[in-house]
Amino acid sequence: MQSAAPASLSSADEAAIRTLFEHVVTAWNAGDAAAFASAFAPDADFVNVYGMHERGRDKIQAAHAFLFRSVFAGSTNRYDVRSIRALSPDVALVHIEASLNVPAGPMAGLRHALPSAVLTRTSGGGWAIAAFQNTFITQPPVTVDV
Amino acid sequence: MQSAAPASLSSADEAAIRTLFEHVVTAWNAGDAAAFASAFAPDADFVNVYGMHERGRDKIQAAHAFLFRSVFAGSTNRYDVRSIRALSPDVALVHIEASLNVPAGPMAGLRHALPSAVLTRTSGGGWAIAAFQNTFITQPPVTVDV
Repeated sequence: MQSAAPASLSSADEAAIRTLFEHVVTAWNAGDAAAFASAFAPDADFVNVYGMHERGRDKIQAAHAFLFRSVFAGSTNRYDVRSIRALSPDVALVHIEASLNVPAGPMAGLRHALPSAVLTRTSGGGWAIAAFQNTFITQPPVTVDV
Repeated sequence: MQSAAPASLSSADEAAIRTLFEHVVTAWNAGDAAAFASAFAPDADFVNVYGMHERGRDKIQAAHAFLFRSVFAGSTNRYDVRSIRALSPDVALVHIEASLNVPAGPMAGLRHALPSAVLTRTSGGGWAIAAFQNTFITQPPVTVDV
């Protein structure tokens, strides 16, 4: 199947999207759930590394407020944006390499993950995260070499 | 942030998307990598349950051809489409509950996963998977009740 008209993003769009994820990771590292959630659209979907699915910025904020004061307290996240591409003029797909360092507790240690996010252009011309899904990078049972 | 103009999908679009995923799971259960990959756009992104990221329908096909003759040989997948919503008139977001039963080998057993997919409308008016990410459903270290 061929895609419909290929879309592309302006350099200003790409810069705005990178800035949004800098905001997200800064908010994480400050343990600021409200700032973290402000990057999401009101009806955003969020699937975490355990396959739990939440819908809604309010729920995303409440869940992260809980996490930031419990298992992820004092944690440091790093996001390396690996790919940004347009799916339509107003929808962007982003892939990230994430490294999360947790100082103590049941999640203590350094973990790597590969989240993807789908962003939609807002009425104000900015971008908001409409969907986010995160998957831990783990050793597969077999190596696929293709 | 408010989203730009809310989009919606026609019942014909929703039906076409459900049919596409029936095709995907039928292809999986037949071990037919070419049929499986035909649901994807040529430049599709695929993140598997181990956080491995591939781009391109050809690579998705080759990886699944390998998997269908090795660890997933004889496996049975079931997809329950839980949510379909429009991110723009030509982009749809889908969440699925997947159950994979593997008869033997290092992955033997029943596993549950929560893949999401982003679909784009094709030039022919159909839909193709532009991005797919899959995450195993596992027990989190803490329960978040929000």
